[in-house]
Amino acid sequence: MRIMGIDPGTGTTGYGLVEKQGNRLIHLDNGAIFTRSDEELPRRLQTIHASLAQVIADYAPQAVAVEQIFVARNALSALKLGHARGVALLAAVQAGLPVFEYTALQVKSAVVGYGRAEKGQVQQMVRLLLALPEIAQEDAADALAVAICHAHSHNLTDRLRQAAVAGGRRS
Amino acid sequence: MRIMGIDPGTGTTGYGLVEKQGNRLIHLDNGAIFTRSDEELPRRLQTIHASLAQVIADYAPQAVAVEQIFVARNALSALKLGHARGVALLAAVQAGLPVFEYTALQVKSAVVGYGRAEKGQVQQMVRLLLALPEIAQEDAADALAVAICHAHSHNLTDRLRQAAVAGGRRS
Repeated sequence: MRIMGIDPGTGTTGYGLVEKQGNRLIHLDNGAIFTRSDEELPRRLQTIHASLAQVIADYAPQAVAVEQIFVARNALSALKLGHARGVALLAAVQAGLPVFEYTALQVKSAVVGYGRAEKGQVQQMVRLLLALPEIAQEDAADALAVAICHAHSHNLTDRLRQAAVAGGRRS
Repeated sequence: MRIMGIDPGTGTTGYGLVEKQGNRLIHLDNGAIFTRSDEELPRRLQTIHASLAQVIADYAPQAVAVEQIFVARNALSALKLGHARGVALLAAVQAGLPVFEYTALQVKSAVVGYGRAEKGQVQQMVRLLLALPEIAQEDAADALAVAICHAHSHNLTDRLRQAAVAGGRRS
């Protein structure tokens, strides 16, 4: 199971790819797409969309995970974030990939085991879980975090399904 | 000069096409793209993006005009709007079209001649200016309004440029 996490933003969009093999979680790649602040918004969105489409084509993930947003500092920052998030979701669905959304609480709980963990703790745990010496870019680390969250949730869903099937067999 | 106006929204996206021939403004088409509320957001964004790309391919406009957003009811509605707006801008830039943004004040001033005009007045003036018996969809009317605004602004820019050239010739 190959999972791509995306942390979209008009300035910087982080992405991370992990492969789940049984109970092992293997790091494949992570990186960030930067757009120039002196470029017009439509052009920046095109860069984000085209770059994500390229990463998807290169790694052929089977699922995309993104953080679900409930709050934003203000309406204007929410609007900007929405633009980037919109083209990121589009790149995923155009590649025929299912998109899974997780709240910040779910991501923190899955990665650190504590829903109110600090951002720094999450990033350190991402490094440890994937045995990476360092993660160059903060948004890439956040993207890996949501990918790990999906790997764990998916794992849980699998186990619940297996339990249900086993229960079905028993009855 | 063929102009496409877009009024994006995750539920309904209005579009309108006008052709500017000298001082005449000719209506080409208008319509709305509806997405199903029971569908997931990525799929809805795909519908909006693909439909707008199709309209652009069908009518080959030379410019796209959208309303510039400064305020939204709240951060969540701004985020939703941002998603739809992001894929709309993407469809335009992918077709190589320049995107022009106008504030609500500019649109109202251009269409009604009064920046604080009511929504209903704007839509009625759009009908009159384009000699349409009716416009079925409110978002389509708003899209035509921003297209008309661009036609007028462009006109003004042209005249200023001509004046500058004439001035240059005189000196």
